[in-house]
Amino acid sequence: MDDTPLKQGMVKPDVVAKLRADAKHLEAYFERVLTRLGGAPPRLVEAVRYSLLAGGKRLRPALVMEAARACGAVDATHASVLASAGAMELIHTFSLVHDDLPAMDDDDLRRGKPTNHKVFGEALAILAGDAMVSMAFELIARDADPELVGPLVVELASATGPVGMIGGQVLDIESETLKLDLCGLQQIHRMKTGALLRAAVRMGAIASRAPEHQLAAVTEFGVQIGLAFQIVDDVLDVTSTPEQLGKATQKDAGRGKNTYPALIGLDASREAAAHHLKLALGALETFTGSADGLRGIARYVVERDV
Amino acid sequence: MDDTPLKQGMVKPDVVAKLRADAKHLEAYFERVLTRLGGAPPRLVEAVRYSLLAGGKRLRPALVMEAARACGAVDATHASVLASAGAMELIHTFSLVHDDLPAMDDDDLRRGKPTNHKVFGEALAILAGDAMVSMAFELIARDADPELVGPLVVELASATGPVGMIGGQVLDIESETLKLDLCGLQQIHRMKTGALLRAAVRMGAIASRAPEHQLAAVTEFGVQIGLAFQIVDDVLDVTSTPEQLGKATQKDAGRGKNTYPALIGLDASREAAAHHLKLALGALETFTGSADGLRGIARYVVERDV
Repeated sequence: MDDTPLKQGMVKPDVVAKLRADAKHLEAYFERVLTRLGGAPPRLVEAVRYSLLAGGKRLRPALVMEAARACGAVDATHASVLASAGAMELIHTFSLVHDDLPAMDDDDLRRGKPTNHKVFGEALAILAGDAMVSMAFELIARDADPELVGPLVVELASATGPVGMIGGQVLDIESETLKLDLCGLQQIHRMKTGALLRAAVRMGAIASRAPEHQLAAVTEFGVQIGLAFQIVDDVLDVTSTPEQLGKATQKDAGRGKNTYPALIGLDASREAAAHHLKLALGALETFTGSADGLRGIARYVVERDV
Repeated sequence: MDDTPLKQGMVKPDVVAKLRADAKHLEAYFERVLTRLGGAPPRLVEAVRYSLLAGGKRLRPALVMEAARACGAVDATHASVLASAGAMELIHTFSLVHDDLPAMDDDDLRRGKPTNHKVFGEALAILAGDAMVSMAFELIARDADPELVGPLVVELASATGPVGMIGGQVLDIESETLKLDLCGLQQIHRMKTGALLRAAVRMGAIASRAPEHQLAAVTEFGVQIGLAFQIVDDVLDVTSTPEQLGKATQKDAGRGKNTYPALIGLDASREAAAHHLKLALGALETFTGSADGLRGIARYVVERDV
């Protein structure tokens, strides 16, 4: 990994600081968005706020913003970029709230706090998740440049829906009783986590009106870090404590779930993640320093311990 | 009600026939949309299809198409109109699937068939509902005229979200243990059912590029039939059998739920519905025969027995 322009030891604090700065922009935006909900039931707004402003790495919105920067956006907090980043985080948060439900993964802990349904009850958690989906598309339609609304909504909706994240979640549930090979596992990863990460960088590129070759490059980057991300997630589930991750761990093995470590072992899993990181960085070869933010996030995704 | 251009005895078969014809266009469109989901898990597509193509009155998409006709659309099956109608029915169907869940209304029967979660399980029913929301916005973004995507998505998303249908559902749940007055009940109706019916006619008008005064007129029409619709729904819950409605009845009273009949009695409820019908028809005064479809639906909404 010495061929990348940033040295590991120097990268991480930088990346984390940048993630935090972008997260602050995003959270200020969310505060403005929530004040638009004057006519909504306060308890619903509270439930949305609880999960939306619960911290988290804000990785997906950061990918939107950094992809926009990579493709030359002068201001990565420009309305179209910020709306895309906000919509992306709303969809991600909705998926966490619904995945945690008793009928799904039945989790009690998320981002170090009780899950939404533990605090607000199942009905409100379902409805808060539903609300976040429509809020995501409304953000784009209201705040992005009019001529970008169509392409951005297509990108987000297709990554969310039956051939994207939601489809991947269904495959994941269905495969719980099956023994998958690596190819089958990658297919689930590609849909369940990969689709949204891929859409994040594509939306950033679209929001900064990137030419086709740049869009293609960040797309390949997104696909590769999507695969790396899920492998690292699987590894962390085995090697971390609930305190470290802020959510239940060791759940995959307990369920006999198909994961990279279960299929090829921890060491080979780490190697696979490093391999996908290399391919991700390779996809950015034609970019100058404008893509250093993306490069930093890619390294962070693989080297993170939470 | 003699001031309206159509006599009751003549209207109903016409309206029903027209609803059926428009429903056929819509269902053919849904079939095309579902074939786009090649990469999706078959079981998820099956769960979406089960609820989406389960029949139903298709009232909301008909309102989209008739509002488009009222505002001069030459072809009410034009791409922007059809995409709006399809998106509207997807959102309505998603809301039924989630409302029927055990954590919400816990219903076993819908449109005369077992509810989605009874057939596919709770997890898949949640995910199928989620999928329908993203599919709705994707339809508009892919199939509507590019410059209409923004306004149509804003319309649908705001009618769906925290200040619309989902917010109304939260208020409805919260009010189950409260005794509301008529004003409080109307507020719930306006959000829970009214927002989507209002959006339906507005989207039809927007899709046919209606001028501002026409948009305002159909908006008022939508508000009034929204109120009439929910009153009639409450009345039918008291006066019908499950066989007639294809869903459980007498549930409202059993729960001590706030309804028009419970609050002001059956006769006054019927009068209130007729009053809102009159206001709805009055809102269409400046329209010629192009709005006869809307007028027919308005009468149908109040006079229906299912």
